[in-house]
Amino acid sequence: MMGDWPIPTKLPLVGGHEGAGVVVAKGDLVTDLEIGDHAGIKWLNGSCLACSFCMQADEPLCPKALLSGYTVDGSFQQYAIAKAAHVARIPKEIDLEAVAPVLCAGITVYKGLKESGARPGQWVAVVGAGGGLGSMAVQYARAMGLHVIGIDGGEEKGASVKKLGASAYVDFMTSKNLVEEVKAATPDGTGPHAVLLLAVSEKPFQQATEYVRSRGSVICIGLPANAYLKAPVFDTVLRMITIKGSYVGNRQDTQEALDFFQRGLVSVPYKTVGLSQLQEVYDMMHEGKIVGRYVVDTSK
Amino acid sequence: MMGDWPIPTKLPLVGGHEGAGVVVAKGDLVTDLEIGDHAGIKWLNGSCLACSFCMQADEPLCPKALLSGYTVDGSFQQYAIAKAAHVARIPKEIDLEAVAPVLCAGITVYKGLKESGARPGQWVAVVGAGGGLGSMAVQYARAMGLHVIGIDGGEEKGASVKKLGASAYVDFMTSKNLVEEVKAATPDGTGPHAVLLLAVSEKPFQQATEYVRSRGSVICIGLPANAYLKAPVFDTVLRMITIKGSYVGNRQDTQEALDFFQRGLVSVPYKTVGLSQLQEVYDMMHEGKIVGRYVVDTSK
Amino acid sequence: MMGDWPIPTKLPLVGGHEGAGVVVAKGDLVTDLEIGDHAGIKWLNGSCLACSFCMQADEPLCPKALLSGYTVDGSFQQYAIAKAAHVARIPKEIDLEAVAPVLCAGITVYKGLKESGARPGQWVAVVGAGGGLGSMAVQYARAMGLHVIGIDGGEEKGASVKKLGASAYVDFMTSKNLVEEVKAATPDGTGPHAVLLLAVSEKPFQQATEYVRSRGSVICIGLPANAYLKAPVFDTVLRMITIKGSYVGNRQDTQEALDFFQRGLVSVPYKTVGLSQLQEVYDMMHEGKIVGRYVVDTSK
Amino acid sequence: MMGDWPIPTKLPLVGGHEGAGVVVAKGDLVTDLEIGDHAGIKWLNGSCLACSFCMQADEPLCPKALLSGYTVDGSFQQYAIAKAAHVARIPKEIDLEAVAPVLCAGITVYKGLKESGARPGQWVAVVGAGGGLGSMAVQYARAMGLHVIGIDGGEEKGASVKKLGASAYVDFMTSKNLVEEVKAATPDGTGPHAVLLLAVSEKPFQQATEYVRSRGSVICIGLPANAYLKAPVFDTVLRMITIKGSYVGNRQDTQEALDFFQRGLVSVPYKTVGLSQLQEVYDMMHEGKIVGRYVVDTSK
Repeated sequence: MMGDWPIPTKLPLVGGHEGAGVVVAKGDLVTDLEIGDHAGIKWLNGSCLACSFCMQADEPLCPKALLSGYTVDGSFQQYAIAKAAHVARIPKEIDLEAVAPVLCAGITVYKGLKESGARPGQWVAVVGAGGGLGSMAVQYARAMGLHVIGIDGGEEKGASVKKLGASAYVDFMTSKNLVEEVKAATPDGTGPHAVLLLAVSEKPFQQATEYVRSRGSVICIGLPANAYLKAPVFDTVLRMITIKGSYVGNRQDTQEALDFFQRGLVSVPYKTVGLSQLQEVYDMMHEGKIVGRYVVDTSK
Repeated sequence: MMGDWPIPTKLPLVGGHEGAGVVVAKGDLVTDLEIGDHAGIKWLNGSCLACSFCMQADEPLCPKALLSGYTVDGSFQQYAIAKAAHVARIPKEIDLEAVAPVLCAGITVYKGLKESGARPGQWVAVVGAGGGLGSMAVQYARAMGLHVIGIDGGEEKGASVKKLGASAYVDFMTSKNLVEEVKAATPDGTGPHAVLLLAVSEKPFQQATEYVRSRGSVICIGLPANAYLKAPVFDTVLRMITIKGSYVGNRQDTQEALDFFQRGLVSVPYKTVGLSQLQEVYDMMHEGKIVGRYVVDTSK
Repeated sequence: MMGDWPIPTKLPLVGGHEGAGVVVAKGDLVTDLEIGDHAGIKWLNGSCLACSFCMQADEPLCPKALLSGYTVDGSFQQYAIAKAAHVARIPKEIDLEAVAPVLCAGITVYKGLKESGARPGQWVAVVGAGGGLGSMAVQYARAMGLHVIGIDGGEEKGASVKKLGASAYVDFMTSKNLVEEVKAATPDGTGPHAVLLLAVSEKPFQQATEYVRSRGSVICIGLPANAYLKAPVFDTVLRMITIKGSYVGNRQDTQEALDFFQRGLVSVPYKTVGLSQLQEVYDMMHEGKIVGRYVVDTSK
Repeated sequence: MMGDWPIPTKLPLVGGHEGAGVVVAKGDLVTDLEIGDHAGIKWLNGSCLACSFCMQADEPLCPKALLSGYTVDGSFQQYAIAKAAHVARIPKEIDLEAVAPVLCAGITVYKGLKESGARPGQWVAVVGAGGGLGSMAVQYARAMGLHVIGIDGGEEKGASVKKLGASAYVDFMTSKNLVEEVKAATPDGTGPHAVLLLAVSEKPFQQATEYVRSRGSVICIGLPANAYLKAPVFDTVLRMITIKGSYVGNRQDTQEALDFFQRGLVSVPYKTVGLSQLQEVYDMMHEGKIVGRYVVDTSK
């Protein structure tokens, strides 16, 4: 919306990449979806399914990837299209409004947790744990048997993060030594096995490389324009730290992320508004007034 | 030797951490080494074998690690000590002078290649391919079934790198667009699956994150004082790049690296001088006059 | 006790390999345990820490492994010995009687679940879910984010297995088609991703290879004397099934298994008797009268 | 051809699943293949690309998989069809006759070696090393940096296997103790890290579970009708052995297997005959008279 990402968009453009709805039309060759089925439109609208990335189930890296609300018109309209091979298969028991935020935020944090390599019983720090992605990350992590250290600013967020199951909360607003506090939150004081950076900017990134356990991984998610990673070579090498970018999930990750949702292990508080109120929602977003998610009902 | 690393050393200190010699004495509890056996002193002189890192075969990350020529006196003396559990087991068929450089340089590049996750048939770029570590990295990579793109400066190094088995050589001194040239050297033009950075400084690091294939890994080895990694967030996330520090190998890596040497798959040109000439060797090193390695005969 | 295992024991022999107690003496070289610390004696009493298996953290495969209550006297005595490097480190907050069964049964099923490669959100069938190992396996699996199908005989066991968190229970006593029932218990009807066989005999093994999902793994634990695995080649190859033996855990697995216990995620019902009643416990065991575990207080 | 496999075929049926040829027609939606391109027809003629197996790049396990020369007419005809998404992309530099055997035999053994988990520098035993699949397995293994122990019968096969790069050859016809001989062929006498069983029958399978190194894997390839795997539980568990079925490769494996061929690392001796001579080739096959492969020129 800001136009500050370094990849060109389609113009004019209909936005929206977390769309949940009903199949009302399909191509002749589509045999595994029926009219009336529920389906989800994700950021990854389509891919070639034939390149070396698609052949290895890394569709998000396909050079011909189509992106919803970016290179094809997205879900902020009553009828939207997506490649049948790529739409999320949403079981009919799932509430369409409630599931919408899973289709990008949920998949993305779930993918990041998988990429981290953290195993059940290990510790993961979630930076930005109180936000939209963060609150989902905490829940996914718990459901995956991980112990969570939430990192964010303010008491209210701390309470919410702990309620979602985090074992500890570190408040960057009041912490005198964030690096030491995060390390101290793990039982042996050597820091978490992985860090999920939900919005990567320089200071939180550098801190993460300091408090992550040796051999641990710092997973970068989130795409601030023009930001840089910066880390001292010496410590990264000697402590064998891994820094890894994680983008959105593939089709299998999508179905797995939905399965956690369907089992009630993850939920997102949301309000529903009509499509005509979209601009108001954007305004609130700019003013930092949104807690949870807004779902846009495209029929209104 | 320069005293510019951020970890304190023992003082006074005898240097040296690539020592190959004969066991002349051992503690009472050492049952798997005999007087007369051949053994190697590595950078990792000893570790606790009981912490969570040692228990997972990551001895180099042990908080109580002893370092040869750094926190304990090293191999630049006629008789040196090391923990029996950690000395390299060197079969008697192996020439002690020839094998010495394997004990740090060899193990380190071999470990880096393992950490890269590159599989036989894939492509790896070696930055600094013409140097001491680099020429070993090229040989280990070839022996592991990898295709190598050597990167270094000058025609002479190019010739040497190709002779060791690299499929391509990119000369940073003459290249007009190093990133594009490295990518073009892979059959499909999408860049190597992994990069081994043998001396990490900012520009080569940033270039590596640009030419590495999506989902690929940049392995940082080598420890220039005060250097930083810096990479754009956007590209790292979208292309799911992994940046990983790799330190020295563990005991198992050591024996594997020696096995490649013993089978004749890796060799290092070297000259032998007496211990009394050590300062001369350092002087040549400072002047950048050394090709291959110098082995110090501590009996002279 | 039966003397029917194909490996010779020490004779005379004191049995017992799930011992939890207090350190009352230690060797001079032991620096990371203090008199008064709590420690556990596991099946793996000691290993060489220097062979290729020990160097790769596979101590249970060490050719020189010492086995508690088998090749060294075990924990059925007031004072027992074990190698300091191998005793479990038990935090003092943990109840020694309650934790004892974790030291073999717990570690073993936890290791098997790790070896299965099943990821959080996936399905695992536990064969023998109602028994001593089985009830721990169900709890560990749940804590690791796995969905469990318990398989055993009888309604009582079914109730107990479900209470511990299994999503489904299949009763081999009443099932008309066990293979189809197990498959039907998974959401897409294609069977569980992994199977834990807690006592491997021919029929349950062959069934497991039939109901496990393609690409899934059948983990064999438990050591009936003279039993064989038998599976049709055709199906194993075409469905790419993995059959894997899993033995006891290494030192790291031990500490991880204890951590799950300490967090209250796993518990075992037990009764405590005096050492003088040991024979009575064996008698009950032979008569199949034991539910849960008996802990032997060696001071009585 | 014998009709002894437990899966029904199409009837009438044109056989053949190692077809290399030229694209002469294509569907409208096929955009990444041009008329005149070279393409290969593999055993896996097509798959749904949408099920949970296809989504994870395990197309060979797709329940809707189409099989060349089995459920669709195969390559023993002048014009044959295959799903565009699945045909092998064959670079024009590659000789079509020479590459044909790679399209099933090559892919299959390459996949098996990948599945074995054996790393460069480790040892793999190839059972049936002197046959068609075996000679390719030896070459792929060598190119992947593995050391090979060839197992087969007769001096002639031994000579051929060693010429292809095997480090050792064990002749089951003359060996007095095959298990001990295979173990003795590895430097430390503990056996190979992996075994490739190219035709699985009971005795070679049981031997493989005995000589494979602890923690090693026995990979089952090849599909004799009605055969069974059988292994003692005790040894499998205590030595943590993995037994794994490996079927054909996916699309990515195919391109990788072709890449090894294109680089000259693998070659297969073959004779070319006309399609009209097909029955003669089958006759020779039954009589066990074929060395290497016969390629059928469908234009004759």
